[in-house]
Amino acid sequence: MSATNITLEQAETAVKAAKVKAVELGTLMNIAVVDAGANLTAFARMDGAWLGSVDIAQKKARTARYFDMPTGEVGKLSQPGGSLFNIEHSNGGLITFPGGIPIENADGQIIGAIGVSGSTVENDNEVAQAGVDSLS
Amino acid sequence: MSATNITLEQAETAVKAAKVKAVELGTLMNIAVVDAGANLTAFARMDGAWLGSVDIAQKKARTARYFDMPTGEVGKLSQPGGSLFNIEHSNGGLITFPGGIPIENADGQIIGAIGVSGSTVENDNEVAQAGVDSLS
Amino acid sequence: MSATNITLEQAETAVKAAKVKAVELGTLMNIAVVDAGANLTAFARMDGAWLGSVDIAQKKARTARYFDMPTGEVGKLSQPGGSLFNIEHSNGGLITFPGGIPIENADGQIIGAIGVSGSTVENDNEVAQAGVDSLS
Amino acid sequence: MSATNITLEQAETAVKAAKVKAVELGTLMNIAVVDAGANLTAFARMDGAWLGSVDIAQKKARTARYFDMPTGEVGKLSQPGGSLFNIEHSNGGLITFPGGIPIENADGQIIGAIGVSGSTVENDNEVAQAGVDSLS
Repeated sequence: MSATNITLEQAETAVKAAKVKAVELGTLMNIAVVDAGANLTAFARMDGAWLGSVDIAQKKARTARYFDMPTGEVGKLSQPGGSLFNIEHSNGGLITFPGGIPIENADGQIIGAIGVSGSTVENDNEVAQAGVDSLS
Repeated sequence: MSATNITLEQAETAVKAAKVKAVELGTLMNIAVVDAGANLTAFARMDGAWLGSVDIAQKKARTARYFDMPTGEVGKLSQPGGSLFNIEHSNGGLITFPGGIPIENADGQIIGAIGVSGSTVENDNEVAQAGVDSLS
Repeated sequence: MSATNITLEQAETAVKAAKVKAVELGTLMNIAVVDAGANLTAFARMDGAWLGSVDIAQKKARTARYFDMPTGEVGKLSQPGGSLFNIEHSNGGLITFPGGIPIENADGQIIGAIGVSGSTVENDNEVAQAGVDSLS
Repeated sequence: MSATNITLEQAETAVKAAKVKAVELGTLMNIAVVDAGANLTAFARMDGAWLGSVDIAQKKARTARYFDMPTGEVGKLSQPGGSLFNIEHSNGGLITFPGGIPIENADGQIIGAIGVSGSTVENDNEVAQAGVDSLS
């Protein structure tokens, strides 16, 4: 049976991989990893990355764990007229555009999540995915 | 004359009925019941239910009692261009999509409300309705 | 190996046992149980219990899990001149007087916590302990 | 002239040194580093460290930078009757017991701060100091 909560070692591996991808893309990112309980486990802000993304990266990571899906999936449903319109007002503020992705163990259980913010949502999501991939 | 405030016994009956319906639908739900004063009375999170729904279930229950109507009805009015656009900013955050329903006594007085979150809004609402029906 | 997170069934057993003790003591209590991640799992407010204790019971449960010790132990250190003076300003508000107790599994791992509020801190703590004892 | 803001590389060096010291002391710590603007730069929670210290470590780091002195120095002034009594109510919550220390560059300019939480304040402070020392 795989462990059901992410370790700091895993979280730091994900942050490191995300940084490598961010450099590759020529971006400056804030990167946050939360555990299975949605509590902050590791965080890094690259030099010169947006200050406003300190909070967004963390909210993306928490949002991904809160609903066990990529943040962008929540955002598709939270548009005006959508079934989850304005869900962002819950939980002290959610971020529902791409850049937050759940992290699973080998058994497919969600053990945490990563959130990335600092560039376009496409870049944010690609950097987050690199973090996830580093653990599989 | 019927009592004007829900009892814990009634609230726990509603939570139990909601859990039964959630299992029947194959969903994992957070279920909250508030009293006539919109204060939390009973709550249950099924094992593995979304963590982000802890707050949403409670906000749905409060929203339903704050305005004495199902949360989805508020949501119809809070869309862009609607008469209550962005009402979700009030009261520390509202949730205005389906899943919150007022609870009435035999005289039609509202004595509390139930809020359910953890699946589609259709499932959320059906589970909430099962809670309401258990008391009638 | 014992499970590392409390189940809803366990949480409801603890709430039920706490209610029995509260009745025995002639008190009206708010009772909250959080899981290993400090997220709300079960809650009950006895009819007529203090409304202000809805929040306090939850904060006691979270505080006990946040620091893996009974809330009263934190309170001994947070007095004026104490080593943790004004720690209550963290985490969106802590409650550091008795009534919150961690819950362990058979292996001694902390899997959640219970918080009780509604009477004297002695009674609150006794009711919380009854909840803990029901799971051992 | 030395740089006037801490880099992520420096922040991660400090976190790493703090972790080494924490292990040496047999403690489990949350470690946060903020930059000259008091914004989070790096963070790590050791496996099993107190969840409540996620916030406290960050608040200690910010408090140290907000007032450019060790947090414990602020705490001496914030006691009942002291000149800064209850200053903890400002800035969304301060932590004023030991464990937060400013970080200076070679010219003596403050370029950030470190905050550590998870054990006694003496241990917290020793671990924070190890982080500071790793950069000098």
